[in-house]
Amino acid sequence: MTFEQWMRSVLDRVEGALEQYLPADSTEPARLHEAMRYAVLGGGKRVRPLLCHAAGELTGAKAECLDAASAALEMIHVYSLVHDDMPCMDDDELRRGKPTVHVKYDEATALLVGDALQSQAFVALTSDVLAPAQQAALVRELALASGSIGMAGGQAIDLASVGHTLTRPQLETMHRLKTGALLRAAVRMGALTGETPDAKALQSLDAYSAAVGLAFQVVDDILDVTTDSATLGKTAGKDAKDGKPTYVSIIGLDASRALAAQLRSDAHQALAPFGARAQRLAELADLVVNRVS
Amino acid sequence: MTFEQWMRSVLDRVEGALEQYLPADSTEPARLHEAMRYAVLGGGKRVRPLLCHAAGELTGAKAECLDAASAALEMIHVYSLVHDDMPCMDDDELRRGKPTVHVKYDEATALLVGDALQSQAFVALTSDVLAPAQQAALVRELALASGSIGMAGGQAIDLASVGHTLTRPQLETMHRLKTGALLRAAVRMGALTGETPDAKALQSLDAYSAAVGLAFQVVDDILDVTTDSATLGKTAGKDAKDGKPTYVSIIGLDASRALAAQLRSDAHQALAPFGARAQRLAELADLVVNRVS
Repeated sequence: MTFEQWMRSVLDRVEGALEQYLPADSTEPARLHEAMRYAVLGGGKRVRPLLCHAAGELTGAKAECLDAASAALEMIHVYSLVHDDMPCMDDDELRRGKPTVHVKYDEATALLVGDALQSQAFVALTSDVLAPAQQAALVRELALASGSIGMAGGQAIDLASVGHTLTRPQLETMHRLKTGALLRAAVRMGALTGETPDAKALQSLDAYSAAVGLAFQVVDDILDVTTDSATLGKTAGKDAKDGKPTYVSIIGLDASRALAAQLRSDAHQALAPFGARAQRLAELADLVVNRVS
Repeated sequence: MTFEQWMRSVLDRVEGALEQYLPADSTEPARLHEAMRYAVLGGGKRVRPLLCHAAGELTGAKAECLDAASAALEMIHVYSLVHDDMPCMDDDELRRGKPTVHVKYDEATALLVGDALQSQAFVALTSDVLAPAQQAALVRELALASGSIGMAGGQAIDLASVGHTLTRPQLETMHRLKTGALLRAAVRMGALTGETPDAKALQSLDAYSAAVGLAFQVVDDILDVTTDSATLGKTAGKDAKDGKPTYVSIIGLDASRALAAQLRSDAHQALAPFGARAQRLAELADLVVNRVS
């Protein structure tokens, strides 16, 4: 199977899993469920589900178990986007090429959509396709990665940094929490869904995730200044306009490109102990660095 | 032990558990952690933790296990208050006698405090004082009760109802989700933390919770028109001012008082199969109906 074929098959599975793990829009309260589905379905790169499925190949995880974990990861990711786009945060009107939830519906609905997606993620993780002990382990990974010492904490640091000059280590700490924690959880959760990996394997996977997570952000910052809004599906040039520190603003465009290439190489190196079984993870690292939107 | 002594001892335990399960305010991001602690600690009636501990007495649950479940329940409750108080929702400035989080800090911080408290609740539930299968069962109860077919769904119905005339069944559906679902989860989670109760026992407990949950709301509506803001610790008369349907506005003050008394009696009756072991649950039903704030 080529990487393209593998990716297409995982994306199809994940879309089906999200359909399944989200309440139907005929279920009351119907408008809330419609808005949750609007936010989640039919868009997005699904990077976290792809990483989860790829990591699951290392430990022989069952596809339907990875689907539950992937749906949970994507719901957490989307809830963070919905809240992040609200007027009191980034105040953004375009996401994945569509009006953001608070624009399409209203602010209160956007708040509740995010809140309910977070709960729904934990509902998905306690699906009985997963054994109870696995459910518990995955819940802990996801809760820690999304909370105040993970994603939400990164958002808080991001907010506090607007208009300030950050050093490169400070910028890295922010991104390690804001996007890195959930990407790392995606990889760990995929691996934990199969035969429990040993501590050394998890360490290698964490090193891979750290490189990919940082590369993801560096490339985001590059695309923010080199690509138009239509291609991005979100407002281009916004970080610069909002006075947000980025890799491009701190080290420049050329050094940012060199850094992305270096991180890709670091990611590949971290996978060396796994041999050919890590092929999809390696290809995903390439995808993250080479993407154009 | 008198009820007062029992309650004091549970409240002390729960305050300690919340202290323990919340990140320290010296942990980065410190301002977010400080705001989370401001929202949660040193206030609140702790009704859900009390119900959880009382239900745990029925099934011989260990106190430290009930502490973890109670901390999780209270974090979910407080996150909902923090988000509910935001300008795009109820826009309230006073809660538990203190400025609300978005007034004391800012809106973006209030948003993140709520988000992070929800994650932290699931971190607490995966504490290793609980066996993995228990963790998984409790996570599922809490996630379902707080999500779109529970608390968040009730909030959505509440929002949609402002300025509309609701029938009494519609009002009951809203409250069954908005406050009832989490109160029910508190009782179920307490019971599930000990020896697994049988289906019939859970059914009796659900009947108890339904009566107590509705009584709680009826009394809230009575207090909103009969008590001043200083006693309530939140803005009195606000529901009427906001055009929100309440029991008092639909059936009147006297009928609301009679309904609360009837619901208290229903709650007691639901506990009959448990005999003396349900004493604390019975006393809590009395407390909910007789409270003055």
